[in-house]
Amino acid sequence: MGNIHGHLFRISTFGESHGPGIGVVIDGCPPRVPFDLKFLQSELSRRRPGQSDLTTTRKEADAVEILSGISTDNLTLGSPIALLIRNTDQRPSAYKEMQKAYRPSHADYTYDAKYGIRAVEGGGRASARETAARVAAGAVAKTVLHHACGAKIVAWVESVQDIRMPEPSKLPTEKSVEANLCRCPHPATAARIEARIREARAEGDSVGGVIRCVITGLPAGIGEPVFDRLEADLAKAMLSLPATKGFEIGSGFAGTLLRGSQHNDAFVKLSGRIRTATNRSGGIQGGISNGEDIDFRIAFKPTATVLRPQSTVEKSGKATEISAKGRHDPCVLPRAVPIVEAMAALVLVDHWMRDRAQNTSFGKCGRTR
Amino acid sequence: MGNIHGHLFRISTFGESHGPGIGVVIDGCPPRVPFDLKFLQSELSRRRPGQSDLTTTRKEADAVEILSGISTDNLTLGSPIALLIRNTDQRPSAYKEMQKAYRPSHADYTYDAKYGIRAVEGGGRASARETAARVAAGAVAKTVLHHACGAKIVAWVESVQDIRMPEPSKLPTEKSVEANLCRCPHPATAARIEARIREARAEGDSVGGVIRCVITGLPAGIGEPVFDRLEADLAKAMLSLPATKGFEIGSGFAGTLLRGSQHNDAFVKLSGRIRTATNRSGGIQGGISNGEDIDFRIAFKPTATVLRPQSTVEKSGKATEISAKGRHDPCVLPRAVPIVEAMAALVLVDHWMRDRAQNTSFGKCGRTR
Amino acid sequence: MGNIHGHLFRISTFGESHGPGIGVVIDGCPPRVPFDLKFLQSELSRRRPGQSDLTTTRKEADAVEILSGISTDNLTLGSPIALLIRNTDQRPSAYKEMQKAYRPSHADYTYDAKYGIRAVEGGGRASARETAARVAAGAVAKTVLHHACGAKIVAWVESVQDIRMPEPSKLPTEKSVEANLCRCPHPATAARIEARIREARAEGDSVGGVIRCVITGLPAGIGEPVFDRLEADLAKAMLSLPATKGFEIGSGFAGTLLRGSQHNDAFVKLSGRIRTATNRSGGIQGGISNGEDIDFRIAFKPTATVLRPQSTVEKSGKATEISAKGRHDPCVLPRAVPIVEAMAALVLVDHWMRDRAQNTSFGKCGRTR
Amino acid sequence: MGNIHGHLFRISTFGESHGPGIGVVIDGCPPRVPFDLKFLQSELSRRRPGQSDLTTTRKEADAVEILSGISTDNLTLGSPIALLIRNTDQRPSAYKEMQKAYRPSHADYTYDAKYGIRAVEGGGRASARETAARVAAGAVAKTVLHHACGAKIVAWVESVQDIRMPEPSKLPTEKSVEANLCRCPHPATAARIEARIREARAEGDSVGGVIRCVITGLPAGIGEPVFDRLEADLAKAMLSLPATKGFEIGSGFAGTLLRGSQHNDAFVKLSGRIRTATNRSGGIQGGISNGEDIDFRIAFKPTATVLRPQSTVEKSGKATEISAKGRHDPCVLPRAVPIVEAMAALVLVDHWMRDRAQNTSFGKCGRTR
Repeated sequence: MGNIHGHLFRISTFGESHGPGIGVVIDGCPPRVPFDLKFLQSELSRRRPGQSDLTTTRKEADAVEILSGISTDNLTLGSPIALLIRNTDQRPSAYKEMQKAYRPSHADYTYDAKYGIRAVEGGGRASARETAARVAAGAVAKTVLHHACGAKIVAWVESVQDIRMPEPSKLPTEKSVEANLCRCPHPATAARIEARIREARAEGDSVGGVIRCVITGLPAGIGEPVFDRLEADLAKAMLSLPATKGFEIGSGFAGTLLRGSQHNDAFVKLSGRIRTATNRSGGIQGGISNGEDIDFRIAFKPTATVLRPQSTVEKSGKATEISAKGRHDPCVLPRAVPIVEAMAALVLVDHWMRDRAQNTSFGKCGRTR
Repeated sequence: MGNIHGHLFRISTFGESHGPGIGVVIDGCPPRVPFDLKFLQSELSRRRPGQSDLTTTRKEADAVEILSGISTDNLTLGSPIALLIRNTDQRPSAYKEMQKAYRPSHADYTYDAKYGIRAVEGGGRASARETAARVAAGAVAKTVLHHACGAKIVAWVESVQDIRMPEPSKLPTEKSVEANLCRCPHPATAARIEARIREARAEGDSVGGVIRCVITGLPAGIGEPVFDRLEADLAKAMLSLPATKGFEIGSGFAGTLLRGSQHNDAFVKLSGRIRTATNRSGGIQGGISNGEDIDFRIAFKPTATVLRPQSTVEKSGKATEISAKGRHDPCVLPRAVPIVEAMAALVLVDHWMRDRAQNTSFGKCGRTR
Repeated sequence: MGNIHGHLFRISTFGESHGPGIGVVIDGCPPRVPFDLKFLQSELSRRRPGQSDLTTTRKEADAVEILSGISTDNLTLGSPIALLIRNTDQRPSAYKEMQKAYRPSHADYTYDAKYGIRAVEGGGRASARETAARVAAGAVAKTVLHHACGAKIVAWVESVQDIRMPEPSKLPTEKSVEANLCRCPHPATAARIEARIREARAEGDSVGGVIRCVITGLPAGIGEPVFDRLEADLAKAMLSLPATKGFEIGSGFAGTLLRGSQHNDAFVKLSGRIRTATNRSGGIQGGISNGEDIDFRIAFKPTATVLRPQSTVEKSGKATEISAKGRHDPCVLPRAVPIVEAMAALVLVDHWMRDRAQNTSFGKCGRTR
Repeated sequence: MGNIHGHLFRISTFGESHGPGIGVVIDGCPPRVPFDLKFLQSELSRRRPGQSDLTTTRKEADAVEILSGISTDNLTLGSPIALLIRNTDQRPSAYKEMQKAYRPSHADYTYDAKYGIRAVEGGGRASARETAARVAAGAVAKTVLHHACGAKIVAWVESVQDIRMPEPSKLPTEKSVEANLCRCPHPATAARIEARIREARAEGDSVGGVIRCVITGLPAGIGEPVFDRLEADLAKAMLSLPATKGFEIGSGFAGTLLRGSQHNDAFVKLSGRIRTATNRSGGIQGGISNGEDIDFRIAFKPTATVLRPQSTVEKSGKATEISAKGRHDPCVLPRAVPIVEAMAALVLVDHWMRDRAQNTSFGKCGRTR
């Protein structure tokens, strides 16, 4: 269970790190949407291992095969879109030690506790490799979102450890994010972050940080009240990513220091549209978008895989030491940027469709705007 | 949409702030669980408005009527449990101004944008009054959880604005939390927090803060991989609460400052059980509980309702000023403590049942522990 | 579990036969739909016990109380609509015998087998009384459907035992169905059916029959492929009704006698629209409506409650005899007509909304008609 | 939408008739279940086209590739099981005519009406080829069911047109069903049916009939009340199959002719177990299994594809004639037998898991048997 996401734009992912491959089936995609394989492949490349010396050296082309759902003239059919990515660079031998001992802060122990069995090689289903399927599905979601309302999603690395970029004067573009290896759009900060990651790698260690994501162009009215608030579904989507430990939207934890009179976002009329003068709400009020930028942050812990010897136990409970030999990222953040965007796109398309279903086109009923 | 929570222990809530009442239908509750109305009522009392001078002066007995699902000898029947709480203290006249102008940082504008209609009085469905239904359902979930595995949930106010209690040397008890009006188990900090809340009230303003929640006694193996990770569902549940702006688990945002070698939780054998020496993971690894305490925090912004005049617009976009006249909480945190616990209980019972469904009792298959 | 219906127009029902009441919460209703309490109440009256000498003598006004979701000017708010119907005429003493022995062909035994507990009086949750909640929700669905596309649903009693009305030359109207007590729109057949039901009642026995239902005005394109075909969801909805044993659509079981060349519905153009010359498909092809009348039948077995002594066992397995003393319908069909319509309306609105979500309003994508 | 089945044992299918392939992802399969590829492949062979002169001549090996979810020692991992079947024998040229004109009683027109686009070749997603994915998933479900409770499912062809086998004196075995090409376990009837099918084929026509399915060994207590009754979910599953027009359980439509006193199944104690003397209920009472055989029938219409010229229209509405040139089955029933069994297995495993989730293992609560 737990491998299906979405209520209407519903994706079902599969695959282990060292099995034949990973993939996704998308059910509920609107028909007649232009399918752009080149774009999908470029999104996968942003997540691809081995893309730079900041990432794991595992080499995967991550070439996607389309199994269904696309017409001969490259339009979505409305039927399930199945996408398959073969695993090619597997080194099961690197994981022999894991057969016996549990890697600290990995899912080895909890999978055993839950299922009484686990795929040892590369972490099996718990490997971050499964996120490639999310990025593939997210690329389709981004395209649908573009046609639905033109909304855009951009994420970037805001900090690694204590190195934090200054508040940007204007929204970073994807181009500025992609301009450097670590996906931090502030060049001076990026240089420091890259040095820090290389330093950690050299010492067989790892580092974490914070990714920020901003969604522009989403109209007011998207999201649901009570349990499925838009920020709740975004929080779930982000905390479903490996290595995440926190989520905040708008003013976030810092907002708890303010008074209500300081925190509230006054409504104003700007260019004929109802806007807010500030955006401490992060673009969502009462669970529903208000037309401002949706603005949130995600905390990623340092990668659990480190090359230093660590204390742990075997399945029997016997104390032992383990040293990682598998390839790994000294910092997951650069590769996590497209994954964050993908999850955001999946949440937004699903909520867009839910809103359409309930609030449009019931004759004179429903929303009139 | 969005008013149903859970996959197996499924609750459907309803009700507006100033309508006849609010309530909940629970579908999927296990049968033969002793139903404890007194406990349920006491949980509602912890959330009740008017419980102290720190809260809104709205007076609601929040007396619950059981409409179905309970046998004559007070056992759950396995059929839907419907619970109804009548609204009694309504002052619709207090909301006249809201008919015309949108209250800043409330859901007035977004509900209009979404539905083209809204219940003006008291915020309608967007009122925090809906959380009473969550607490009622959560009380049932807590009872089920107790019988399932004995797990316990305790939440408390950790900080209000910059006033933060020190890290407790041992886990606060519900008794220590309930020992003071603001539900902070550190008496000296509690006194300062209460003074701060009274100060904000006196000035017609409001304050926010952080609630911490710890779950003890949950066995390893609860939670799902990938999209429905236990922390993801907890994050969603918490961010679905009114006024929340952030969630972090275990090391949280502070964990991004550490290196992997510092952050990892080494496995050890203690009293014959596999444990971790530290708990930066917050009790969950790979989305699945590891048997340690589940430990998370939620950021609550200052209440949006303040008595000072604020700039806003009318539905037409015309600029105007608004001053709240409705009753409100100068700080939501004291009353939010039982709500946080309720949402945690709902998530845990649902995941407990999902785990039972997949991983037990398939002859020799399934989990063997 | 099992008390929630629908994917987008989602209803959650509750209530036991002899508890405080029964009811329903509707989540996902479109906003701004005129809510017609009078119509809702009239639909409940068509299902009401005690409406004629053909039905049970239990007397229930079935007066509905609206708990939420409706604005002061009688429009739906888009938030959950909760409806409560109090039970008033309860005779728990009539069910004493049921405490010990299982009534044949009732759910007494299976509820005990499943839950290890059951509400004995009146069959508890298994009582057909729960269908009142379906009719209440169905009345709202009918109204939504009317505003969405103008589709209409009419059901009638086609046969009781071997008494079967001739194929009607034109579609029966609701007026012609309501013109007689047994809801068979062919007066001569109706007279024979009523006599047959009275005869069964006089002999302490019961009879079954077939209800036919036709939906007109539903445009082509509603329904889903593969698992959620429109006829599949209709079949499920109908087989979820108490006492049903069969469902057939279009040519049904009789269609198995034909050859393909005889069975196929040729396409023709009529009044500028693509139509079929015949309708053996019953208005659905490939799971999706084709714009023709949707036409199906449901088999209802004779009521299980008979006044004659019957062989059965006690919980321990000890053989005994039981004679019903509770009030009952000698034939459920007359009262089942509005229930069939209600379930059809719930299925159609849900599918209408699913279609809107996926197939409309994605810029130039999606359906163009 | 509509391509996902199940609440806990959840399958997501994909694939078009003439695309790269079809397949299924199973989420929620219990762990440590022995995976039997040989059995899975043999189930697919029972459904395979080209298996005899009674079926379509399309030649597909239907060799399945396991993409994920199975351990190196052939046990399920509890993670998603993805299965892929490549299409190999495609003749898109055979479908040129279909590009312009709608085939009568196929889904060509309704797919166009719904999506504004369709995969023309072989019917695309509406092709019965998608049922191979159901059979693959069903084989896994059968294995799980075996380990869960030992329940067995056997289906067979009961009638083709007016040729109907006599009521069997004892339950047919799979062996007796597989003993002849048309899967009717009564040899004399089978011979007549085969002759009839060959006759229809020779005349370029097609025939339909009835499949019966019996489930033995399912304990009492499986199924849910109200909307998700076991017979309701079985009816939905069966009506989701291509070419189905009806479903009946137990006494079915014939049961409407009886009186209650004739129809009721008296309870008796047999071999220490509570049983019923007759089984007109078809093994389900109140939506929940009673431990007797579950016994139902499904009506299949004659195949829509016939080689004779038929009247139809083009997309524009222009009248034309069409003659099928694609390969097709003159009678779908022989190949539908394993598909019916597969759908039954999927429903049963899902309900088994739902029952486990709610009714077992809550300390002293829950079911005690």
